[in-house]
Amino acid sequence: MTNIGIFGWGNLGKAVADNLHDFPDVQLKVIFSRRPHAIEAKYPVASVADMPDWVGKIDVLLLCSGSATDLPEQTPAAVKLFNVVDSFDTHARIPAHFTAVDSAAKVAGHLGLISAGWDPGLFSLARTYFNAFLPDGTDYTFWGKGVSQGHSDAIRRVAGVKRGVQYTVPREDAIARVRSGERPALTTREKHLRECYVVAEKGADCKKIEAEIKNMPNYFAEYDTVVHFISEEEFERDHRAMPHGGFVLRSGNHTSAHKSLLELNIKLDSNPHFTSSVLLAYARAVHRMFAEGRRGCITVFDVPPAALYAGMPEELRKNLL
Amino acid sequence: MTNIGIFGWGNLGKAVADNLHDFPDVQLKVIFSRRPHAIEAKYPVASVADMPDWVGKIDVLLLCSGSATDLPEQTPAAVKLFNVVDSFDTHARIPAHFTAVDSAAKVAGHLGLISAGWDPGLFSLARTYFNAFLPDGTDYTFWGKGVSQGHSDAIRRVAGVKRGVQYTVPREDAIARVRSGERPALTTREKHLRECYVVAEKGADCKKIEAEIKNMPNYFAEYDTVVHFISEEEFERDHRAMPHGGFVLRSGNHTSAHKSLLELNIKLDSNPHFTSSVLLAYARAVHRMFAEGRRGCITVFDVPPAALYAGMPEELRKNLL
Repeated sequence: MTNIGIFGWGNLGKAVADNLHDFPDVQLKVIFSRRPHAIEAKYPVASVADMPDWVGKIDVLLLCSGSATDLPEQTPAAVKLFNVVDSFDTHARIPAHFTAVDSAAKVAGHLGLISAGWDPGLFSLARTYFNAFLPDGTDYTFWGKGVSQGHSDAIRRVAGVKRGVQYTVPREDAIARVRSGERPALTTREKHLRECYVVAEKGADCKKIEAEIKNMPNYFAEYDTVVHFISEEEFERDHRAMPHGGFVLRSGNHTSAHKSLLELNIKLDSNPHFTSSVLLAYARAVHRMFAEGRRGCITVFDVPPAALYAGMPEELRKNLL
Repeated sequence: MTNIGIFGWGNLGKAVADNLHDFPDVQLKVIFSRRPHAIEAKYPVASVADMPDWVGKIDVLLLCSGSATDLPEQTPAAVKLFNVVDSFDTHARIPAHFTAVDSAAKVAGHLGLISAGWDPGLFSLARTYFNAFLPDGTDYTFWGKGVSQGHSDAIRRVAGVKRGVQYTVPREDAIARVRSGERPALTTREKHLRECYVVAEKGADCKKIEAEIKNMPNYFAEYDTVVHFISEEEFERDHRAMPHGGFVLRSGNHTSAHKSLLELNIKLDSNPHFTSSVLLAYARAVHRMFAEGRRGCITVFDVPPAALYAGMPEELRKNLL
């Protein structure tokens, strides 16, 4: 049995709790929150300030905060008290985050796994296996169709926008070219479309909003962007979910005569529910690897697949090999 | 640098040699064969009888023989002398093979990895990650389009058949049902078609051949089978390659409202070239894990993905996480 805590009660933390029924060997002991009174009574809650009291009572803490400002502080701090798993997803800052968590974990004698989820996470695993098994090849990652939180936030900062959501849409024509085996060089614009659904404030200038979105540097200017203006009712009905997914492809050659094409694709109705399920599987693995003596910071690359599986190694070999 | 030997000079062993240029940290030291004089002069060869002379001169031996009768004998014998990797693919006999290799490896103080390739191998990894990350779900494995050696052999045993090849073809309608998220129960007949190309002996009764193939128990009777009679020229031109591939899908739910669909699919121009590339990546991993003290028998489930990657762990995190 792996006893866990959840830190943070946003979409991700709530989805961890929703998914517990699929992990019978994992038990939720406590949710740490800055506002414990806001959490439903059916859950065990505690204040963040009381975290030191829980040392020795949980095996792994799942950090369910955001990567922008929370996790860079919280993960190195939390690993001083507990083994931890986080979903840190700012690719460029992973090396620095790894170093910070590794130092703190080694001093405390704990184990921390960072950057679990689907990208980074399952997609990183696919890229690694595909590279190892097809060394002479080209990688392609496509995201979507799915909601990008950062781009949706950017839309909502535009004057006159009441509500807004942005879907990243992989271009079928680009995926088809990759699948054909031609190994194309694809620009940013050729890989993804950006599709926006906007509820405008009463009396707002929709043409102006559309132009401002489409020309926003870093977010939209480099892409083909479509802006749809819709009613608040339509927004409420059709755009409240958080679907996501994407494609990892590797196209390459063994010899000039022998090609291979490897593809992972996933379709998620709920991004936080899938991500939190990955966090739970890695909590199980961290608990096992800590028991075997592993310390410091690790990633999905350091975890043998068997450590993720609920059953015994011989069952795994019999059933899934 | 990982110094390897190859045991067996069939399609798989030759493909290992073809792929070496993609593994600059792997060096071929020797090919063991029962008929060393039949191997091209550019390769280092030795007789199987001289294997004991090579102890200490190679890090890992790649066993490139067949699963039916060769590997159950050869892998436990070879692991007494060397660390080994094989592609044993008779699913039902994997537990017995594991036990035999594990005992021999532990006595000798060596490390053996069995059942590398694509199924078992990459497909097994996909099934395991998909199960761990989506516990409430249904697995589907489809093979093809590709050549089945066993079924091709069965065709060639029919009286009047001069040459023959059988392609296993996944049914697009079945894959579409799985992708729709409905989690269908699919029979053997609903998942795959069997497509045969036959060159008949002069004067043979094609109707009789066709009936005999279609009604062959265990091989064809349980499937929808199509038999095409073609000329020897057409056979030679279009049916000499060994393409293969397939699909691993898992469709499931996190909550009643939240589904996920996970799919790996691969398309291989040359089955032996991809399989041998997987063997080479695991030879690298076995060499590393042996150096870290691992002994006994392992499978792809026991190997952390980082051990497969040619570069340093920090490069892997930077480039592929």
